[in-house]
Amino acid sequence: MPRYRTIGVIGGMGPAATADFLARLVALADAASDADHPRVLVDSNPNVPDRNAAARGEGPSPGPVLAAMAEGLVAQGADLLAMPCNAAHGWAGAITAGPFVSMIDAAVAEAMAHAPRRIGVLAVGATLALDLYGKASQVPVLAGDLAVVQPAVTAIKAGDRSAVTRAALAGAAERLVVDGAEVIIAACTEVPLVLGADDVPVPLVDSTAALARATLAAARLSG
Amino acid sequence: MPRYRTIGVIGGMGPAATADFLARLVALADAASDADHPRVLVDSNPNVPDRNAAARGEGPSPGPVLAAMAEGLVAQGADLLAMPCNAAHGWAGAITAGPFVSMIDAAVAEAMAHAPRRIGVLAVGATLALDLYGKASQVPVLAGDLAVVQPAVTAIKAGDRSAVTRAALAGAAERLVVDGAEVIIAACTEVPLVLGADDVPVPLVDSTAALARATLAAARLSG
Repeated sequence: MPRYRTIGVIGGMGPAATADFLARLVALADAASDADHPRVLVDSNPNVPDRNAAARGEGPSPGPVLAAMAEGLVAQGADLLAMPCNAAHGWAGAITAGPFVSMIDAAVAEAMAHAPRRIGVLAVGATLALDLYGKASQVPVLAGDLAVVQPAVTAIKAGDRSAVTRAALAGAAERLVVDGAEVIIAACTEVPLVLGADDVPVPLVDSTAALARATLAAARLSG
Repeated sequence: MPRYRTIGVIGGMGPAATADFLARLVALADAASDADHPRVLVDSNPNVPDRNAAARGEGPSPGPVLAAMAEGLVAQGADLLAMPCNAAHGWAGAITAGPFVSMIDAAVAEAMAHAPRRIGVLAVGATLALDLYGKASQVPVLAGDLAVVQPAVTAIKAGDRSAVTRAALAGAAERLVVDGAEVIIAACTEVPLVLGADDVPVPLVDSTAALARATLAAARLSG
């Protein structure tokens, strides 16, 4: 008897983050054999319009493509949907084909478990411009230096996993801690591909792992 | 302009191997940005009937489920199909919805590039019983000790990545080399999750990586 409903993944933003999310779902399912895992349908689509350009009003909205991907996944059998890209949540309202597990809400919930007075986020332009974390959080949110985070994310998307990029992101996190952040959220799915808990002096919430945990919890069948 | 046709992945056998395959597609695409990657549709379905039981005549055929998964992926837009599970290739004939890239053929081609007189395979019961590698290879194929490989694969499916399991598989490979194998194929997708090239005294062909390379080559658009 299946333990989970079928999960649909609106992915490809970027492709490495989607592969990372699938690996987290597998690891966190804590399964003894293949049959204990959820069925997961993935659409890793690298052709979703650029979220940062859209947030600046300089490119098409990703909304219609995200809506179509969601419809395709539900048509194929997905019972609930998750999207491992923080910035794309600016257009989550377009995803109406099925129940949607919010990555932003999942990451904020994990951050709030530490009862911080301020949260720091390492995020890209669209996530900051649309204030996705500020709107979801009950405490003030401090934004990591975009002049550091944006080029780091672009480098990671091109395959960079270097110590230099890790140190740049760790430095941005450190400055947020100096400014009063008591938890840091890796609020772009590329960030946890290089930055780990050991690199940051306060608790680090990995938005990809938070979404995987929330998605498995939402998909789990009772009994 | 897209560089690749859309890839459909018939997966979930096991789920960790499918996540590994997706990560290989991402890494091997050698992309500078999201848009350089192929679109990949994945059906990670842990409910495909057991391949080993079916090969023993003790369970239902996986064929109809694999055929339905292929049809679903093609309906969603897949232009070609790949299946990161060696044993399931015993029922590849049921997959008729679209062009299919064979993992067995991909791994044998990479093995033959070393011009071996004999190939050793670390594979599970169904792969051996159906002689999938023997039929595809131009040189004799030696089977690794199933009493070692089968329990190792079961342990890996349950999350085991231990040095003990690695050593057991390395020992099975070593015995094949003593018996005359000049190349070893990790002919079950769980094997390369723990066994690496450094663990084997002759060239090791990773069937998951071989399939990823062959799939990207088949999906690549000219120009």
